Amino acid sequence: MKKGFKRIGIIGRQRTTPETVDTVLMLVNMLSETGYEVLVEAETASTLPQLSAPVMSKQKIGAENDLIIVVGGDGSLINAAHAVVDSGTPVLGINRGRLGFLTDIHPNELKTKLQDVLAGDYFQEQRFLLQAGVYHDDTLLHQEIALNEVVLLPGEYSHMIEFEIYINEQLMCSQRADGQIIATPTGSTAYALSGGGPILHPKLDAIVMVPMFSHSLSNRPIVVAGDSVVQLHVSEDNEMSPRVSCDGKQRVAIHPGDSLVVKKYPKQLTLLHPCDYNYYETLRSKLHWQKKL
Amino acid sequence: MKKGFKRIGIIGRQRTTPETVDTVLMLVNMLSETGYEVLVEAETASTLPQLSAPVMSKQKIGAENDLIIVVGGDGSLINAAHAVVDSGTPVLGINRGRLGFLTDIHPNELKTKLQDVLAGDYFQEQRFLLQAGVYHDDTLLHQEIALNEVVLLPGEYSHMIEFEIYINEQLMCSQRADGQIIATPTGSTAYALSGGGPILHPKLDAIVMVPMFSHSLSNRPIVVAGDSVVQLHVSEDNEMSPRVSCDGKQRVAIHPGDSLVVKKYPKQLTLLHPCDYNYYETLRSKLHWQKKL
Amino acid sequence: MKKGFKRIGIIGRQRTTPETVDTVLMLVNMLSETGYEVLVEAETASTLPQLSAPVMSKQKIGAENDLIIVVGGDGSLINAAHAVVDSGTPVLGINRGRLGFLTDIHPNELKTKLQDVLAGDYFQEQRFLLQAGVYHDDTLLHQEIALNEVVLLPGEYSHMIEFEIYINEQLMCSQRADGQIIATPTGSTAYALSGGGPILHPKLDAIVMVPMFSHSLSNRPIVVAGDSVVQLHVSEDNEMSPRVSCDGKQRVAIHPGDSLVVKKYPKQLTLLHPCDYNYYETLRSKLHWQKKL
Amino acid sequence: MKKGFKRIGIIGRQRTTPETVDTVLMLVNMLSETGYEVLVEAETASTLPQLSAPVMSKQKIGAENDLIIVVGGDGSLINAAHAVVDSGTPVLGINRGRLGFLTDIHPNELKTKLQDVLAGDYFQEQRFLLQAGVYHDDTLLHQEIALNEVVLLPGEYSHMIEFEIYINEQLMCSQRADGQIIATPTGSTAYALSGGGPILHPKLDAIVMVPMFSHSLSNRPIVVAGDSVVQLHVSEDNEMSPRVSCDGKQRVAIHPGDSLVVKKYPKQLTLLHPCDYNYYETLRSKLHWQKKL
Repeated sequence: MKKGFKRIGIIGRQRTTPETVDTVLMLVNMLSETGYEVLVEAETASTLPQLSAPVMSKQKIGAENDLIIVVGGDGSLINAAHAVVDSGTPVLGINRGRLGFLTDIHPNELKTKLQDVLAGDYFQEQRFLLQAGVYHDDTLLHQEIALNEVVLLPGEYSHMIEFEIYINEQLMCSQRADGQIIATPTGSTAYALSGGGPILHPKLDAIVMVPMFSHSLSNRPIVVAGDSVVQLHVSEDNEMSPRVSCDGKQRVAIHPGDSLVVKKYPKQLTLLHPCDYNYYETLRSKLHWQKKL
Repeated sequence: MKKGFKRIGIIGRQRTTPETVDTVLMLVNMLSETGYEVLVEAETASTLPQLSAPVMSKQKIGAENDLIIVVGGDGSLINAAHAVVDSGTPVLGINRGRLGFLTDIHPNELKTKLQDVLAGDYFQEQRFLLQAGVYHDDTLLHQEIALNEVVLLPGEYSHMIEFEIYINEQLMCSQRADGQIIATPTGSTAYALSGGGPILHPKLDAIVMVPMFSHSLSNRPIVVAGDSVVQLHVSEDNEMSPRVSCDGKQRVAIHPGDSLVVKKYPKQLTLLHPCDYNYYETLRSKLHWQKKL
Repeated sequence: MKKGFKRIGIIGRQRTTPETVDTVLMLVNMLSETGYEVLVEAETASTLPQLSAPVMSKQKIGAENDLIIVVGGDGSLINAAHAVVDSGTPVLGINRGRLGFLTDIHPNELKTKLQDVLAGDYFQEQRFLLQAGVYHDDTLLHQEIALNEVVLLPGEYSHMIEFEIYINEQLMCSQRADGQIIATPTGSTAYALSGGGPILHPKLDAIVMVPMFSHSLSNRPIVVAGDSVVQLHVSEDNEMSPRVSCDGKQRVAIHPGDSLVVKKYPKQLTLLHPCDYNYYETLRSKLHWQKKL
Repeated sequence: MKKGFKRIGIIGRQRTTPETVDTVLMLVNMLSETGYEVLVEAETASTLPQLSAPVMSKQKIGAENDLIIVVGGDGSLINAAHAVVDSGTPVLGINRGRLGFLTDIHPNELKTKLQDVLAGDYFQEQRFLLQAGVYHDDTLLHQEIALNEVVLLPGEYSHMIEFEIYINEQLMCSQRADGQIIATPTGSTAYALSGGGPILHPKLDAIVMVPMFSHSLSNRPIVVAGDSVVQLHVSEDNEMSPRVSCDGKQRVAIHPGDSLVVKKYPKQLTLLHPCDYNYYETLRSKLHWQKKL
């Protein structure tokens, strides 16, 4: 049996737009009138002077609600996922204009689709995240999570990194490359795809590794089991410190001799879709694939 | 506890070479002297006039033995796998000269490695196969199995096929292409790799689909769950009949309007390796990847 | 000064459609009324019982006219080019529905654009063709021309060919591959593009060679000078005879030990476009590239 | 008739190695003894306390000599080319250990090959360079030259750039990508090749443009005429300033709204090779392509 939602948190896109403002306000009114308790994430609320609903920080909004609705693009949903994944609270995405892979309710159909979801009529799936740790020997220097991908990439003044790749402590290969993308199935249709990686169906328990501009022309994307521990050891021969970036966010330096360790994050994101959700339709739409002949 | 081997069947490469003959004879002598019951596959035996061991057809050799040793290249092991997979008997591959992905004991180290394996000191893994059925409506016209890949490819007089791809009865997309490769993890380092597909670790329960020369430049390899049912519906608009080929073998015509249905075969191949088997080492060696920096 | 056109030949697409019939008839009437002498290619005429204009074979239609108008897709223009290239007569393409790379006048704008062209207001360019010869030692067994590409591809019962590539009698490399595409700039946006080749601007005097599913992952498309003599020597080790195909047409067997020699054809195709022709606009439109931000 | 060389300048690799020191000293002695006037580039000389030959700055060494010999890798030759290209003085490359595309005399065969070259027995070719200008409206802010490639790439804090590409003032397309490589034929086997670009034969008068991680999956490398003027207009919508890098060197910021203009540099590099130079042999060796079957 699917659980009923009573308290609903709303998160809008960070750089808000008039369309986002409209949709958030409409949601607040609609949900309040129907008897739901509605809370708005603090940063989102700060752009809505006309808002009467209670406000809550992004850190708390997951644990304090039964459902999180994100209004924005896939980037907004990824941001929200970072904040709420630990709470286990399910997330529903409403896009503003352009269909996303994760935000798949269009504002035009918001009312009917949202009513269905609130009535318990939805498709639920788990999406796993990665956690990335930067280590100096055994000391953890920095840790982050990623819903799409962890990327090792060059710093400001060079474009080539020498590193070794280990999977479960077994050497896979050494690389001289611009970097390396380590992506989840969710991320396989994002940056990794631009880099020549394959698409992984979201149901797969697998991680895809895409080399970036490898010097070795025979280096190819490789898909490994989802429970693999991936270690990139940055060679001491590098003169510059490469960077690590999770989901395209801030870049952290990783120094020569240090290691980036990437593995599945213990908590998963619960993502809700309307019942007519069709992954392949999203793919076709986003990638301009041909429909039925 | 690992089972002891008493009866051992030997299969040599189909187009035999002096090296294969030598190795098969050496194996027969070595194993017989050590007290194993040794049987040689009929076709292999026909090239060995000097052979004294009993002979058995390829159809029976799996069920009648505790272990099958294949002497040859990966192609020989694939052939053998087709014949013995139903019996569940484990297979061990000995290459002749060039290291293979599946035949990973080099003749130089045959004696020691084989002794280890026979003593129960081995690494065992399961490799799944695909079964491909050609259907006219609901009538099965032809069926085959593949350890590496099933390929839809053009017939003699044209190079473009129109077809629709369904995964578990959901439309993925329509294709206008030279064909489509549907590969297992085992096959991901074979033909699919030449076609731009990713490498799938053998442990993955996944199938990779690689479009061949698609007219749509945004079409990419896609990896789906290993239990997926893949259906390629050959459009009635095709003027020629494409072909279906399993593991690069004979080509069967598939007529416009008919469908190719590919799914996991219920029986799996049990593959043995020496204990020091290292998948990534094989990859590095075959693909000229760099070792440790 | 641009020459005036008096006699105009019209060629329709081979498998005619109602739209093609309409456009051909409209052209005949419009041009006849304006005082041009109009001839219709015989095969095209055979589908037009209502036609009153004189008829001429495809072989003669180039030499006997000042301008050839092709109604159809890029395939129709390629067919026509094969027939008329020796005459040097310029060719103008009118597409039926879908914009082509070569047939770039849309029926909707036919009247005004055609009047401009007939008034001497056009953009003229030369497109070179390739000639492909199959040789047994020094004996020429078969010869053909291609506007898009010459392809070496496998025969019915195998998918791998062993061959050596020579450029101007210098060995480039040996190949074990499904085949090889040798394309003109005109052909670089056709089959070669599906095979991963680069786009060559039509002005380039260059030939692009695209390996098909090469066993060597480091094999890449290579662009050589337009006056290069490309020789593919089919190894005697091949058990089957590969095929040669020009512009996707009939396939001719090439036997093990024989050679395919490809070089620029001495005559070039004169292609006319309306004055507002913009190559990059065609690229953007056909490949769904983004316009101005 | 080929000119005789009297004064010879020697440039060693910037980060010198014992092997480079040895070879430079050997060259100085050998050439001095044979009666040539030998000058050593200042930075190179500073690492050779035992050197007795006269020293000259890199800026002057081209104009003051008849031949420049570079000892090092391809990177060393590129550095030297930047300094001497304006003088028109021919350059000869001696590699230290690993064969390069540009430095193709191996130290083992230095004596005989060098004697041949000095005796006028060499193969000479011209390699063109690119010049890159950063413009704010019509004001030139920065200018550099490149033998391999000019790259537009992201700055420190973002990985996506929005820009428009114009060829000869015609819009080619808009891009949302990590960047763009604009390479010469010489550079086509360097960074552009790692990015999926085609190989261009050095004789070609052409420029290849390789998109880096384009959001549009149908974006492909495109080869345009060598005399094209390529303009990348960095959209004002970018929040960060991308960078421009020539031949992998220092990165210069290019601000939103500014343009990068790339075209052929008026002076060409004269590159000498031993008479048995074979471009395809270098390709085969560097890319592990198969030799004769």
